[in-house]
Amino acid sequence: MGKVTAREDFLFNQVYDFVLNRIECQEWNEHEKLPSIRQLAVELNIHRLTVLKAYKLLKKHNKIYVKDKVGYYVQAKETGIDKYINHPIVSAYAQKSSLSEIHQSQVENNFSQALIDPNLLPNHYLSDYVKKVFDLYPKLLATYSNVKGDDELRESLANYFILQYKTVISAENLLILSGAQQGIHLIAQTFIKPRDKVLFERPSYSAAIDIFRVRGAQILTVDITPDGYDLGQVEQLMRQHKPRLFYLNPTFHNPTGYTVPAAQRKELVQLAERYHCLLIEDDAYHDIYFDQKPPLPIYTYDTSGIVIYIRSFSKYISPGLRIATIICQPAVMNSLISVKALTDNGSPLLNQKIFLHYFTSARLQQHLDKLRIALQIRKEIMEEELASTTWQWNSPGGGLNLWVHLPDNQSTERLLNKAIGNSISFIPGHICDPIKAPSSWMRLSYSYINEKQIREGIKKLTQLTDY
Amino acid sequence: MGKVTAREDFLFNQVYDFVLNRIECQEWNEHEKLPSIRQLAVELNIHRLTVLKAYKLLKKHNKIYVKDKVGYYVQAKETGIDKYINHPIVSAYAQKSSLSEIHQSQVENNFSQALIDPNLLPNHYLSDYVKKVFDLYPKLLATYSNVKGDDELRESLANYFILQYKTVISAENLLILSGAQQGIHLIAQTFIKPRDKVLFERPSYSAAIDIFRVRGAQILTVDITPDGYDLGQVEQLMRQHKPRLFYLNPTFHNPTGYTVPAAQRKELVQLAERYHCLLIEDDAYHDIYFDQKPPLPIYTYDTSGIVIYIRSFSKYISPGLRIATIICQPAVMNSLISVKALTDNGSPLLNQKIFLHYFTSARLQQHLDKLRIALQIRKEIMEEELASTTWQWNSPGGGLNLWVHLPDNQSTERLLNKAIGNSISFIPGHICDPIKAPSSWMRLSYSYINEKQIREGIKKLTQLTDY
Repeated sequence: MGKVTAREDFLFNQVYDFVLNRIECQEWNEHEKLPSIRQLAVELNIHRLTVLKAYKLLKKHNKIYVKDKVGYYVQAKETGIDKYINHPIVSAYAQKSSLSEIHQSQVENNFSQALIDPNLLPNHYLSDYVKKVFDLYPKLLATYSNVKGDDELRESLANYFILQYKTVISAENLLILSGAQQGIHLIAQTFIKPRDKVLFERPSYSAAIDIFRVRGAQILTVDITPDGYDLGQVEQLMRQHKPRLFYLNPTFHNPTGYTVPAAQRKELVQLAERYHCLLIEDDAYHDIYFDQKPPLPIYTYDTSGIVIYIRSFSKYISPGLRIATIICQPAVMNSLISVKALTDNGSPLLNQKIFLHYFTSARLQQHLDKLRIALQIRKEIMEEELASTTWQWNSPGGGLNLWVHLPDNQSTERLLNKAIGNSISFIPGHICDPIKAPSSWMRLSYSYINEKQIREGIKKLTQLTDY
Repeated sequence: MGKVTAREDFLFNQVYDFVLNRIECQEWNEHEKLPSIRQLAVELNIHRLTVLKAYKLLKKHNKIYVKDKVGYYVQAKETGIDKYINHPIVSAYAQKSSLSEIHQSQVENNFSQALIDPNLLPNHYLSDYVKKVFDLYPKLLATYSNVKGDDELRESLANYFILQYKTVISAENLLILSGAQQGIHLIAQTFIKPRDKVLFERPSYSAAIDIFRVRGAQILTVDITPDGYDLGQVEQLMRQHKPRLFYLNPTFHNPTGYTVPAAQRKELVQLAERYHCLLIEDDAYHDIYFDQKPPLPIYTYDTSGIVIYIRSFSKYISPGLRIATIICQPAVMNSLISVKALTDNGSPLLNQKIFLHYFTSARLQQHLDKLRIALQIRKEIMEEELASTTWQWNSPGGGLNLWVHLPDNQSTERLLNKAIGNSISFIPGHICDPIKAPSSWMRLSYSYINEKQIREGIKKLTQLTDY
């Protein structure tokens, strides 16, 4: 099985998905004519035979039909209740979500969860703390938050950002979210319509990929490397395709751990302004650095409002609280607030108040200092165990993951099958790939299990490859 | 100002919004030709002059332009960052949301909030309770919920529904939501695409109206009366327009307080099955009855999976927790879970566990018994104060609101302006109207302020009308 076959197969799958997605999103309606084979081949820049092959399989699966030998048409749906059930907008992706399957495997050595080991979190202290929060706000459970989020929390976070990054913002620039993922979803709903182009790093965060694909976006990619991006390529993509936004995770990037250097950050903002491309900066790992602090967030270079910044906090304090924030300029904010109001009418106040009181306590910094050391130790143990192999990775300066390459282009998907059988889990690279190509990369999270489990798990895992 | 002018103005506004909405949703793209005046007049069943008037104003507002006297075209957007800011999908609705303005007015006599007075909620008891919850689950704050919701909570709720309504369901039929509104939003995202038709009661819940309108749905209405619906009309609408779903709130309906009689419920399910129209039953007030329990929920008559049931709980226990559930059949459930996973990846576990432990305690029924009496007393006081006027309403058997009609078609919107000036708030009828027509109805909530404030407020309010 050479490389060529794999690529053809891959393209064929892409065309199949492309068409099916448009039918399921009802962008192409029942009995509507599909683009001709020639048209689609040109549009997607692929061989006509690949389109033909995809159309034939779609016909076999009763998704499209041929009429009078003139062309292909969208098949009508069955009637009855099934009509509503078998082709909702999301089904194509839902059925393919192997990520949740991986997370559901009960394994001894879990390298798939990019979550912090609950044993490293301040649970006991927080539980006591909650009691004080109720004394402070006796009617807390009876009260809705406003849509933007609790005023006290937004002011406190604004002050934090002003101190940390010397930027001029106020509570009015902040919108409280029930987790960072909600922020990505709000942005997709607010700014993206089907066929809009969006730029992604390759690889990227799989939930973000799913959110934009389900929204019907067409995804362009730029590689992220230990040195950041090829900005020439970014500019070319922006100029040629006019993407509506660039979703990026420039600091201890998930899954790679790479950090875009400070020098590129300012330039990126200039490019975004020039080509009117919103930058969605997802900054989940900013505080999880090891030896030195990361560069300032990209939004600190923004003067025109082109950057929307998503900052997650609860991950390293209390994932159960689900607290994150967006920072953006007022005009963008008004739109996002409207969508947030429709989505859930505001995050629960209880969670915001608990978070607020821990966030403003001296305990937070003490906890973070300890947590960074604990995670660095775990990372180093994982690297020690991997040192004797020919596997390759770039040692990250922060974050929760190693992004590791198998030698000889071995498939990490294949390795995962063996691994699960040996009670080990990790994330194979294709899940983090916006175009879902076969991959020899994998994400190994060192954050979720303890030192002993890491050593054992890596020892077992490295023995599962072919040599 | 006669009725005719008001109607013309109303239709004109509808056309203006119809066109602007399609441009802002980018259903109609830049430089695309608009339907001719004649076409649109036929499609919307209105006079051509009304369309012309709307097109002219849109042209004046630089939303459309005329080319070669042949027709109207969509204006290109400005470039620059404004491009992203001034025409997000939601702006048309966001700018009109007068509801949040009303809620934000700081008034002494608040009849606009359909929320339960925090003084009637078990805050103190719950706060103590929270401490026990942390003893039970020491790592609660460090744990994510799964997407469907906490297993223990879903099982407990399933058992509750089985006992209450003798229906055969299990935890697998339940999806936990961060508030009922999130459920409506998930359903709209999963099943509705632009131009899909949806059926609404008239009047209805304003947030639901906004959610479906922003999604681009075309809204049909059927009146809800103290006797329920005209089922002949419902059938005709279903047959003629094939709406994809019917959003309904049949028990102590918001805003009217009316309840659809048991006899109509089964028939409604049969109609829905015949015409393949999902029924979205929003049941927020089921437990807030006064003298007798309401009829069984419509979903209990469902055998084919055509009903999606949304049940809110936290409203009368702890609004701050934001806990509600969907009940539906597995095939629908799988789609909703996928969308929930993209939206927020699951509701916070903390809130679910706190709710669970109160929900399963004996305290809940004691609290509800007391709460029903307290709300009934407040309702009766409001009715006493209104008894001396010529205002009209149907005394509701439950819920939080009176739906009151002013004599001589006086506008409640006009009354509201005076009321706010006198530190009184309520919801004027047009906000609850899916087609936003001028109205002489208003919603007066008796749930949020105490007996004394209700008496004073109604006394003041009734003196503000013209006689």
